[in-house]
Amino acid sequence: MASVSVDEAMRRAVALAARGLGATSPNPVVGCVLLDPDGEVVGEGFHAYAGGPHAEIVALAQAGKRARGGTAVVTLEPCDHTGRTGPCSHALIAAGVSRVVVAVPDPNPVASGGAATLRAAGIEVTLGVRTEEAEAGNIAWLTSMRRGWPYLIWKYAATLDGRSAAADGTSMWITSEAARTDVHALRGTVDAVLAGVGTVLADDPRLTARNLRDGTLAIRQPLRVVVDSSGRTPADARVRDGAARTWVATAAEVGAGPDGRVDLAALLAELHHRGVRAALLEGGPTLAGAFLAAGLVDRIVGYVAPKLLGAGPTALLDAGVSTIADAIDLEITDVTRVGPDLRITALPRKREA
Amino acid sequence: MASVSVDEAMRRAVALAARGLGATSPNPVVGCVLLDPDGEVVGEGFHAYAGGPHAEIVALAQAGKRARGGTAVVTLEPCDHTGRTGPCSHALIAAGVSRVVVAVPDPNPVASGGAATLRAAGIEVTLGVRTEEAEAGNIAWLTSMRRGWPYLIWKYAATLDGRSAAADGTSMWITSEAARTDVHALRGTVDAVLAGVGTVLADDPRLTARNLRDGTLAIRQPLRVVVDSSGRTPADARVRDGAARTWVATAAEVGAGPDGRVDLAALLAELHHRGVRAALLEGGPTLAGAFLAAGLVDRIVGYVAPKLLGAGPTALLDAGVSTIADAIDLEITDVTRVGPDLRITALPRKREA
Repeated sequence: MASVSVDEAMRRAVALAARGLGATSPNPVVGCVLLDPDGEVVGEGFHAYAGGPHAEIVALAQAGKRARGGTAVVTLEPCDHTGRTGPCSHALIAAGVSRVVVAVPDPNPVASGGAATLRAAGIEVTLGVRTEEAEAGNIAWLTSMRRGWPYLIWKYAATLDGRSAAADGTSMWITSEAARTDVHALRGTVDAVLAGVGTVLADDPRLTARNLRDGTLAIRQPLRVVVDSSGRTPADARVRDGAARTWVATAAEVGAGPDGRVDLAALLAELHHRGVRAALLEGGPTLAGAFLAAGLVDRIVGYVAPKLLGAGPTALLDAGVSTIADAIDLEITDVTRVGPDLRITALPRKREA
Repeated sequence: MASVSVDEAMRRAVALAARGLGATSPNPVVGCVLLDPDGEVVGEGFHAYAGGPHAEIVALAQAGKRARGGTAVVTLEPCDHTGRTGPCSHALIAAGVSRVVVAVPDPNPVASGGAATLRAAGIEVTLGVRTEEAEAGNIAWLTSMRRGWPYLIWKYAATLDGRSAAADGTSMWITSEAARTDVHALRGTVDAVLAGVGTVLADDPRLTARNLRDGTLAIRQPLRVVVDSSGRTPADARVRDGAARTWVATAAEVGAGPDGRVDLAALLAELHHRGVRAALLEGGPTLAGAFLAAGLVDRIVGYVAPKLLGAGPTALLDAGVSTIADAIDLEITDVTRVGPDLRITALPRKREA
């Protein structure tokens, strides 16, 4: 195989890392490419699932003795602690690599220190190659680790005129099967799915990740969280079935805000404590408005159906905005056709203080 | 110049025709390419403005004697009547062309018959080359001529959550300057701009096509139409200024529907009678709902701003839909970024009887 540059190896490592997305939580996704002293690729690996071997270990196992004197190209700073696996820093030292190139330093205070350990062992450590791409690939995990609460994605489905149901409350189906399948895939990439008790009472959703064609459940299910200030979730609600774990978060358990409802910041902190790094907020409009008003939403994914209703409930209510100058400003980062529908992805712009 | 095929010449004629868009009404856009007997392009023309020479005449003037024995490739059946210019059929016969290739037959009962006249003069006439593209380029004119009322485009601007203003009524500006500039360009392609009296009373819009930077008016202004059932448009409304012609259409003048309001079908028929082939409906939500409920909208152009409001008026009201199965189904045909905003173009799907 022809030799590749460190930059090209990192591009490849970022792509490898992405293959673990949705399966590694509460760990990050990580990719690793090992180059021998001539720059030839002698090992590749990614972190495939929580509890499984880290990317560096997979790549080292593949390279064997050919790692000696070579360069390890890793998307995230190698870990320095013994968790479910041994420290990667030690494994790299033992393998005799002479250089480690890292895209992003580890923000996790428990696991960080790998770069220092490697340097102390005489290994050259370079930080900052293709950092932006590696950050983007790990955005939910990095964001949640840096600030201590989950990366929150608000997902909604609406008609082109912003309605989430018709005047009589019917909403099956606003969006196409293709869009609903896409939502189930999205659920498969997060650790928790959140819904307000109003949605549970109105629609009795399952909130599981499943195959829409045959109903089979995905192997890994996100935690189902019902935001239920006063504990109104019925005992026989579908969300309480055995298909996945469920947490009915009440104000009594989580703590209440000034309005007597579940304190949303406290709720997110508790979810982080439970290992939730990425969460999907699925409804209803008032809960979405409360999260948005509090500035707690990191990404918005809207499924927009080519339909008009002209009446009926809207996808968003009570977001704390009364005049146009206070509108919640977004940046649209992606528009993709999903069947006949559009999937619009947007990021809230930081507000000036 | 190398010889070109008739198919390639028609592709070129369709592109030429498009250069007249917005300036030829109440005439269609037309493009013409003349090939000599060897298939070499010897003349090109398009209909540039109403009252100006037809595409065939421009191309024939350019070709001179080289048209003799050649082929005229025209997007629309050559006219057979003397309007503001002489019949193109006669001009083609006089020039001695031996073949005329036409994409779309003329639906205008006054002007049609060109093909028959040409055939009677011994000229070979071929119909149906690149018909779909030529139809698309003339869709507004063809649609309006075939059925007797204007091609109606509903344009709206809204936030991602479907609001056209904030809770306090402020709406300047929902969309970006880039989107508003695009709207003025759109106004420049139609013959009439329609708004309800509610919008006139609330926003006092000018409804002119102008340069947003310096305020200068476009040379050609669409007719401004206020749908004003009971004649409430103030004498000093901006829409009554001298910048363009204005018609305040009252129920007394147009006729009333069962609800006592302006009969929308009668309004469109009257606009057609006045030479309006394409019209732009700009608001408000109730008027848009009435046109949509009546199945009178041909195209929807939505400018969607990356903003969330969670409250305030919606872009559409009262479209005659109360349950999801009766939603107005659309097909999204184009999504384009205009500055930070999205422009979503959609066509209503035909409803089954």
